[in-house]
Amino acid sequence: MQGEHRILNQTIELSTTGECDIHDLTGEIQRRLDEAGIIDGQALVFVPGATGGLTTTEHEPGLLRDLPEFFERIVPKGAHYHHEDTWHDGNGHSHVRASLLGPSLVVPVVDGRMTLGTWQQIIFIDFDNRPRQRSVVLQLSGVGASG
Amino acid sequence: MQGEHRILNQTIELSTTGECDIHDLTGEIQRRLDEAGIIDGQALVFVPGATGGLTTTEHEPGLLRDLPEFFERIVPKGAHYHHEDTWHDGNGHSHVRASLLGPSLVVPVVDGRMTLGTWQQIIFIDFDNRPRQRSVVLQLSGVGASG
Amino acid sequence: MQGEHRILNQTIELSTTGECDIHDLTGEIQRRLDEAGIIDGQALVFVPGATGGLTTTEHEPGLLRDLPEFFERIVPKGAHYHHEDTWHDGNGHSHVRASLLGPSLVVPVVDGRMTLGTWQQIIFIDFDNRPRQRSVVLQLSGVGASG
Repeated sequence: MQGEHRILNQTIELSTTGECDIHDLTGEIQRRLDEAGIIDGQALVFVPGATGGLTTTEHEPGLLRDLPEFFERIVPKGAHYHHEDTWHDGNGHSHVRASLLGPSLVVPVVDGRMTLGTWQQIIFIDFDNRPRQRSVVLQLSGVGASG
Repeated sequence: MQGEHRILNQTIELSTTGECDIHDLTGEIQRRLDEAGIIDGQALVFVPGATGGLTTTEHEPGLLRDLPEFFERIVPKGAHYHHEDTWHDGNGHSHVRASLLGPSLVVPVVDGRMTLGTWQQIIFIDFDNRPRQRSVVLQLSGVGASG
Repeated sequence: MQGEHRILNQTIELSTTGECDIHDLTGEIQRRLDEAGIIDGQALVFVPGATGGLTTTEHEPGLLRDLPEFFERIVPKGAHYHHEDTWHDGNGHSHVRASLLGPSLVVPVVDGRMTLGTWQQIIFIDFDNRPRQRSVVLQLSGVGASG
């Protein structure tokens, strides 16, 4: 019934502005799934770096302000971080926020679609304190149509 | 030694009361694993919606009060959320809490059992501000007995 | 092009001191991958217990102080936890911190290497309030060299 189990490794390239810059990856990941023809499996998304994180949210203007305000409240940019004593690059808060949110997200794929809710999008948050070029890792795995 | 690699997509249906309503999914997921006959693999649990999350805890009465009190302390229900300006549905705090906890959990399955600790249960937390019917996605994958 | 899809279940043994004791697992996981010969796939790391968690960070002395200070600030050891009424073991804060961080981490493996950033390490944080012997679960899966 199922074809061969496949693993496809890709990256998604992003230009980010930093300081809780939020990018909706949902459409791009679904496009990659469509191209790959994965019917049943998983989309594993991973941030190769310690100042960005992944989660889901409803990607609407209000929450795009609420999430940065939340991170500023529990991990303030202006506080002192010992990371500063090591590197003097001013992004201790970025590191703590990224460790808290986590670098990894796994989404089931069923009948060729990620099992997201209607009002739920996959977001990458860049917590760093400067613009970056980011390569987010996308690993699609599973089986396609039987051939 | 190993049988064919299989992927089974299911859902677990729940009636929730909202506002940090915590449901222990462990027993039901293990039952599904037993039925499926997966010996080595993974249980991927996923919340298809942006106001619920997944983690593990010791499911005992004290922590069932501690976890909601923690979320109320760091993401208070009574604070102002810009999400309110978009939808006026009073659940901005639910969204921020859900994004923080995350919608996805992956548990290894070894010799037919999830590798949980004795005092560790898989919990779904419904952060929404009203009762909901929830379908949590469960993807079991791996190999069964050779046969 | 790809060999057989394999699943290898292992554990990593650790002696921990508790109270946000942070262990860098990166080198050991990469060694296990090299031994297993997995070329494309995943490393799933899982804490079988409700007082430890996993994430990534830059493993340098400053952040090794910042992360414990962050957890102490948002989940103070000295606060009252209802968990105490159940067990009287003084580790309510350990449980809340572990549920927040989460027990599970999935890292893509591409060309035999985990897709971590240069300054990004996989860390296990023991939040418990006493020394422990820990077995962290490591599940390597994927395909090796064709052959």
